[in-house]
Amino acid sequence: MSSAATRSADSDHLWSVDEHLEDILSTVRPLEPIELQLLDAQGCVLVDDVTVPVSLPPFDNSSMDGYAVRVADVAGASEEFPAVLDVVGDVAAGAADPVRVGPGQAARIMTGAPLPPGAEAVVPVEWTDGGLGEGPVSGMRARSLAPEGAAGHVRVHRPAEARAHVRDKGSDVRAGDLALEAGTILGPPQIALLAAIGRGTVRVRPRPRVVVLSTGSELVQPGEELGPGRIYDSNSFALTAAARDAGAIAYRVGAVADDAETLRSTIEDQLIRADLLVTTGGVSVGAYDVVKEALESVGDEDVAGAGVEFRKLAMQPGKPQGFGSIGPDHTPLLALPGNPVSSYVSFELFVRPAVRALMGLTDLHRPRARAVLKGDRALRSPKGRRQFLRGAYTDGEVTPVGGAGSHLIAALAQADALIVVPEDAESVEPGAEVEVVLLG
Amino acid sequence: MSSAATRSADSDHLWSVDEHLEDILSTVRPLEPIELQLLDAQGCVLVDDVTVPVSLPPFDNSSMDGYAVRVADVAGASEEFPAVLDVVGDVAAGAADPVRVGPGQAARIMTGAPLPPGAEAVVPVEWTDGGLGEGPVSGMRARSLAPEGAAGHVRVHRPAEARAHVRDKGSDVRAGDLALEAGTILGPPQIALLAAIGRGTVRVRPRPRVVVLSTGSELVQPGEELGPGRIYDSNSFALTAAARDAGAIAYRVGAVADDAETLRSTIEDQLIRADLLVTTGGVSVGAYDVVKEALESVGDEDVAGAGVEFRKLAMQPGKPQGFGSIGPDHTPLLALPGNPVSSYVSFELFVRPAVRALMGLTDLHRPRARAVLKGDRALRSPKGRRQFLRGAYTDGEVTPVGGAGSHLIAALAQADALIVVPEDAESVEPGAEVEVVLLG
Repeated sequence: MSSAATRSADSDHLWSVDEHLEDILSTVRPLEPIELQLLDAQGCVLVDDVTVPVSLPPFDNSSMDGYAVRVADVAGASEEFPAVLDVVGDVAAGAADPVRVGPGQAARIMTGAPLPPGAEAVVPVEWTDGGLGEGPVSGMRARSLAPEGAAGHVRVHRPAEARAHVRDKGSDVRAGDLALEAGTILGPPQIALLAAIGRGTVRVRPRPRVVVLSTGSELVQPGEELGPGRIYDSNSFALTAAARDAGAIAYRVGAVADDAETLRSTIEDQLIRADLLVTTGGVSVGAYDVVKEALESVGDEDVAGAGVEFRKLAMQPGKPQGFGSIGPDHTPLLALPGNPVSSYVSFELFVRPAVRALMGLTDLHRPRARAVLKGDRALRSPKGRRQFLRGAYTDGEVTPVGGAGSHLIAALAQADALIVVPEDAESVEPGAEVEVVLLG
Repeated sequence: MSSAATRSADSDHLWSVDEHLEDILSTVRPLEPIELQLLDAQGCVLVDDVTVPVSLPPFDNSSMDGYAVRVADVAGASEEFPAVLDVVGDVAAGAADPVRVGPGQAARIMTGAPLPPGAEAVVPVEWTDGGLGEGPVSGMRARSLAPEGAAGHVRVHRPAEARAHVRDKGSDVRAGDLALEAGTILGPPQIALLAAIGRGTVRVRPRPRVVVLSTGSELVQPGEELGPGRIYDSNSFALTAAARDAGAIAYRVGAVADDAETLRSTIEDQLIRADLLVTTGGVSVGAYDVVKEALESVGDEDVAGAGVEFRKLAMQPGKPQGFGSIGPDHTPLLALPGNPVSSYVSFELFVRPAVRALMGLTDLHRPRARAVLKGDRALRSPKGRRQFLRGAYTDGEVTPVGGAGSHLIAALAQADALIVVPEDAESVEPGAEVEVVLLG
């Protein structure tokens, strides 16, 4: 008998929230890395250290639009006594073989263009007459409109030190430097750096593919007509959105009827595209709790920890929960309760960290804060249960929103925090300090 | 002559960061609303108030797996003296026409199932013998395995008050209530509520489509070989990623050579899929600054504010900037400078708020904080310019990362904040308080 079966036989055991979470996180492993195009890797975790293959900038280049000159030629130059230089040509950005600058010469140069041989500094165009023979100019005329700007004479009105307005090769990063460490999350600036050093692809842990199934013969697709005794399916929408919010690629399968065989075959069909399966409903003690019925018998008893185990948590909402793995690849599965608030809270506490662990992230959890409880009455909580109430958080204060009922979905939509009432508290008075989970 | 042309003629005028931003935000209008499937509307802004068409729950229903009973039948029941009731059938979730519960009778009922006619309360299955004729049970056996559970007798061990474990119709929301206000951003809980009240689609402002073009004949696609005088294109990758991060659907066009006609026709091609165009490079005072050349002549002088205007900002990095609108739909265009750090900082300060304004969001800007400057030397800043330096922020302290050079892309990848040095400061000493923009 597997340990899972042993433990589930002990159906009176109440798992703590932390035990359940620890069990999940000790089972879920980061996904195998894959090579992705840079922009497909946004938000993903880098697997290897990346070193710089080529120094940046790769060559000495100009930081200004101006003229590349020799220092001696502009020494002592002023507007009254300008240095007059022969313009030997243009050096545009991307120039492969720039013109040489000899004594008494200047090359018109653009920002980012390589410092041409012979030149020692750049004078900005604003320090010159731009070749027009009049006073200082504020810019160059477009090459296409005024090709003569690449020849003739230029008057330089100020001297320049050696290397003035020159960005030295390797002044940003040097070949061999560490560009990014393994474990870095790739946001826009990190993608910028990878592109700048020439990396077109990068090895990262991919976003997990999460399949969300809701179960229940009472569920109707939103937009369709609601028959007697039936309600709209909201969980599959909410959790698909929440999985995307957590970083996953999420697929919503929608409502599966309360029939164990249908559910089993639906799950088997979905395994092909799932790194993680999430179900809602059917995990409690009822006679139609088909998730429990369908999955309790699916265990792979040859593998430690395989199979799905159903347990009771010392938690409100969210007491009944299932967790385990199924299928040939031991795909992790979290079976959440069916009440909308229960399933959403369970997702935040258990599925979101699992998604982030699959991504290889180390920061798995929503931020938490301490807050002063506002409102005009005490919160009640059953002893021995950790309760998560919906709240609105602002500047160190949290106000309860709606009641404790796990069906109160309207209040959930007004909340931005969960108020945590610990196991040993039966009530919390207004003014007391509580822990809150910030839903962001 | 349009006011844009008048202002751009005054090329020595330095615009402040705030003036430029104000000009952008006074021009960019929220996109026209469209009806989207719920999950496609995630992160979007709701356009209309949504009222509740049908009360939730839509009918009285059970909050537990148990037995629906009449209060008088279980009055005074105990484990020693149980109430023995005839089980007249099951009421599963979704039952359209549940069995009637008469005196001396009970119906086995599942969580979420409608309270059957005649019943006044629900007793949880744990308060009964589950019909097995022995002690209290912890749950029901699956209907498929033990169909006899829907008949026979049940012993109830505890009394129940009227409405016990019954969720009243409308106790969550009532038909006609306001579900969500116009302007609400649709996250998972809001999507849950919309689904729960039966909304399959919703009218929102769509995500803007942002086309990112980098310009420069020196640019090489990452992964390809770098010739002399050339560098890798990083801006188009960084800004496409940043646009997605801001909420946009972003298309990366990549590097366009420094030729005004090519650029003009590329932009014209892209207009069809753009709500906003972003270019990098070619906006300064050089002879090859083709963005300026291509777009200065594209203005629609019949329309106030149409056409693209190039200006100098009292800002470092990011002094040269272009802004305006082009094409038959007056599509907004931001022309950013080409240095990687300049373009990224410009994106954060100007493009990100524009993207969010197009989405109809009211919270347009990155959060800001006050922080104590760490490090061992003073920050220098040119007088009259607002400087944005890269920094690493933790707990109210910020440490500069890298130098001020606008080509220092490696340092940018280590930063998570911009340190703001205001126009009137020329240096900031360690220990002083500074404003930081948190890049998140």
